[in-house]
Amino acid sequence: MQTIFHVTVWGEFRHEKKNPKVAEIYPRGMHETIAGFLREAGGMIVSTAVLDEPEHGLTAEVLEKTDVLVWWGHMAHGDVADEVVARVKKRVLEGMGLVVLHSGHYAKIFKALLGTTCSLKWRESTDKERLWNVFPSHPIAEGVGDYFEIPAEEMYGEPFGIPTPDELIFISWFTGGEVFRSGATWTRGHGRIFYFRPGHETYPTYHQKEVQQVIINGVRWARARVNIPDTCPNSPALEPLPEDPEASARPTIGHT
Amino acid sequence: MQTIFHVTVWGEFRHEKKNPKVAEIYPRGMHETIAGFLREAGGMIVSTAVLDEPEHGLTAEVLEKTDVLVWWGHMAHGDVADEVVARVKKRVLEGMGLVVLHSGHYAKIFKALLGTTCSLKWRESTDKERLWNVFPSHPIAEGVGDYFEIPAEEMYGEPFGIPTPDELIFISWFTGGEVFRSGATWTRGHGRIFYFRPGHETYPTYHQKEVQQVIINGVRWARARVNIPDTCPNSPALEPLPEDPEASARPTIGHT
Amino acid sequence: MQTIFHVTVWGEFRHEKKNPKVAEIYPRGMHETIAGFLREAGGMIVSTAVLDEPEHGLTAEVLEKTDVLVWWGHMAHGDVADEVVARVKKRVLEGMGLVVLHSGHYAKIFKALLGTTCSLKWRESTDKERLWNVFPSHPIAEGVGDYFEIPAEEMYGEPFGIPTPDELIFISWFTGGEVFRSGATWTRGHGRIFYFRPGHETYPTYHQKEVQQVIINGVRWARARVNIPDTCPNSPALEPLPEDPEASARPTIGHT
Amino acid sequence: MQTIFHVTVWGEFRHEKKNPKVAEIYPRGMHETIAGFLREAGGMIVSTAVLDEPEHGLTAEVLEKTDVLVWWGHMAHGDVADEVVARVKKRVLEGMGLVVLHSGHYAKIFKALLGTTCSLKWRESTDKERLWNVFPSHPIAEGVGDYFEIPAEEMYGEPFGIPTPDELIFISWFTGGEVFRSGATWTRGHGRIFYFRPGHETYPTYHQKEVQQVIINGVRWARARVNIPDTCPNSPALEPLPEDPEASARPTIGHT
Repeated sequence: MQTIFHVTVWGEFRHEKKNPKVAEIYPRGMHETIAGFLREAGGMIVSTAVLDEPEHGLTAEVLEKTDVLVWWGHMAHGDVADEVVARVKKRVLEGMGLVVLHSGHYAKIFKALLGTTCSLKWRESTDKERLWNVFPSHPIAEGVGDYFEIPAEEMYGEPFGIPTPDELIFISWFTGGEVFRSGATWTRGHGRIFYFRPGHETYPTYHQKEVQQVIINGVRWARARVNIPDTCPNSPALEPLPEDPEASARPTIGHT
Repeated sequence: MQTIFHVTVWGEFRHEKKNPKVAEIYPRGMHETIAGFLREAGGMIVSTAVLDEPEHGLTAEVLEKTDVLVWWGHMAHGDVADEVVARVKKRVLEGMGLVVLHSGHYAKIFKALLGTTCSLKWRESTDKERLWNVFPSHPIAEGVGDYFEIPAEEMYGEPFGIPTPDELIFISWFTGGEVFRSGATWTRGHGRIFYFRPGHETYPTYHQKEVQQVIINGVRWARARVNIPDTCPNSPALEPLPEDPEASARPTIGHT
Repeated sequence: MQTIFHVTVWGEFRHEKKNPKVAEIYPRGMHETIAGFLREAGGMIVSTAVLDEPEHGLTAEVLEKTDVLVWWGHMAHGDVADEVVARVKKRVLEGMGLVVLHSGHYAKIFKALLGTTCSLKWRESTDKERLWNVFPSHPIAEGVGDYFEIPAEEMYGEPFGIPTPDELIFISWFTGGEVFRSGATWTRGHGRIFYFRPGHETYPTYHQKEVQQVIINGVRWARARVNIPDTCPNSPALEPLPEDPEASARPTIGHT
Repeated sequence: MQTIFHVTVWGEFRHEKKNPKVAEIYPRGMHETIAGFLREAGGMIVSTAVLDEPEHGLTAEVLEKTDVLVWWGHMAHGDVADEVVARVKKRVLEGMGLVVLHSGHYAKIFKALLGTTCSLKWRESTDKERLWNVFPSHPIAEGVGDYFEIPAEEMYGEPFGIPTPDELIFISWFTGGEVFRSGATWTRGHGRIFYFRPGHETYPTYHQKEVQQVIINGVRWARARVNIPDTCPNSPALEPLPEDPEASARPTIGHT
């Protein structure tokens, strides 16, 4: 449990190339900034992958050795191949952790795992965001006090189209009058999922210490503990059963 | 809330045509048996639809007026068109109720809404199933005592690859030594989902009063209360914000 | 299920006698205002009870016929007799609904049922409260839009010392910068509990239509469906067991 | 997080003195057997305490340094002083973990934290218990396969009078026909609670490796991560508020 584990930070890496403001904030890409503070945190080996690599950098080999996948995407959700989404989903259900950031709420992988619209209200303006810690004993909230603030961020507002989280960790307050469930977890299959709201590309959010701490905590919390492939086995009885007069006649229809 | 509501019972209707034993138990099809006892229960207008109808009988018009969809499928999950699955999913997220029966655990619609494998152990033999009522005050358990038994049924065993249910209502005991979470609910979007395990096609399960009662209860519980289309609106501030020096420069990238 | 049911509105009824401002807002007591709009809503027979009656008006007879108890208390939680608290708790666990309002978060009965501190942050000032509806399909949110506002209210802030709610319906935004889980449900035993935050005695909150609608919805949602007394029975086997060589030697120690 | 932590195993230690059969199985007391395998597991400093010590061995000093308290009681729940129960409860709400075993379902501390009856069905006979693992990726299920068996145990059956668990890990199958939610977790305040069913005093259950592994896992999972005292602070605004014309007139009534 304490051995070094493997993290892959996936970035869409498009805004950084198109918008000089974003490039100024994240010169090497948002994924490299995120990978950077995870490496500094220690205890993990961190790689990156981006949309424009072959198979988006998420080959079966890469995923097989990944314990936690961090996901940031926004303008190009539709360019992510369904085949890769299916591959990532399979790995999460087998045990790989997934940390989804900000606009990743609309990533195919997030919607496929949660099954809902994942829609929300939004506004890109001058809101301040204050994240209230409603689960102080949760490992993801470690080192966070009662709340912390992000001086300027995009607003996300309720209702947020998600299934009820297993655990609700942060609720955000926005200057403009909205609230949002901004830190939440789910277990799907054998994998743990953490959604964390902050991180619009035009604000320097991932340079902020508190935000980094939460992501580090989230990655540690989500790390894979098992790797269990999917099966749906025909299973013999463990206790004596009455005789089955029709045994020979029963078709063996598998569950497919 | 007390007005008459509309139920569509969807049946795969293949086993009944291929297996004389199934045809003997359900001469007009399983869907007609289920529709029959729902009609007798009253308070609802019940239609049926089957796989081999055009669009599987689930046109946009049919779904729009359906408050609860009941689903039984098994050998032909793969023949259900993805387009129809997407249409049904959209309606559940808007508010339509969904009652999924037995082998429907592997229906595309169930897996798409829950996001997990929905796999399980299984055995078609001579097991008795005893369903224990673990949520006696739940409307779906109304009229059910501490437990009821089905003399012979296919066994489904844990682990069951589902997200933690919002509510767990029944746990089954099987002669052969297994247990199963056999009655469970989830809310997804604005729709309520009830999964109920019993009902393998080669046993007369849907003729049993207790099973019928639970399905009637489940349909009543799941009936649509709202019909809310999906939106992800750009939302103006409700409280004064600081001025936005970059307002004119902000690209209006929609959430898509 | 649609028959008329019985509601008892319990009020502490002390502030109204001591503070002229409160008396001005609620001349006949807060409990009478609440009982009044419940009566108008229809479908229920509404009684009231107050702290200074014998047994606080909550005799075994009163509770036995009560389907939903509404609770408002604040300055005199300590004056509620433990014996009455135990009696109310027993009835909730048997199936009676309980709607706890505002400062009732610190009522003995609420803390006894939830098991936690139920502490929070608070400030009596000029905050506006905006309640966001995060569960639009829930019966308690019926008729409420995306949000509604209370022009002036006491602030309650997170962290709120409650167990994770079964269902989270409202999250409040306050002018002063806080958020709060202000509408939440739990099932305890066979009874349903709804906590609703608004209603400080110095503001005319219970005269506001939206607040009344939520309380009416909450009372309807919480109404008792069962009345199941507590037992912990020694239970004979339902299936054949191996012989028990020590049967005669086994002490029959009850679970007490 | 990886530093050594402190565990206190609390035993009622009465059956062992009264019943020779129990004394034969657990010559030094059940608590010493449990403490023994926890010590062998490593990473923790394990102490014991029993009912007949002053303050039941659970002084404020002992509790303050305890990270996880393990609890086994049965015939003498009523002899545990309410003052000690209140002290333990306070510590759990502040962050101390609590592992409750078997008949501890009726311990005052368990009922006080959960708020429900915690009643169940029971039978002391020749049942075999098979515990199915329904949450294979949970740390408490680490090293447990799909299921494990206890050759003979007391039966506990549903309905079990608990609040819906945060996490359900094990469901038991009993020869006599019952099922039971036999491994479940809750967070209450800042403390984690794990209930684990097996361990009737007349069976050698705590000598079985699988049972020991689950308890070791449970203790590790429940260890205190925080120590947060209860407060209910009057909290100044973090954002500008309108002026309060009645500020001087507002009584400062604390939340008590």
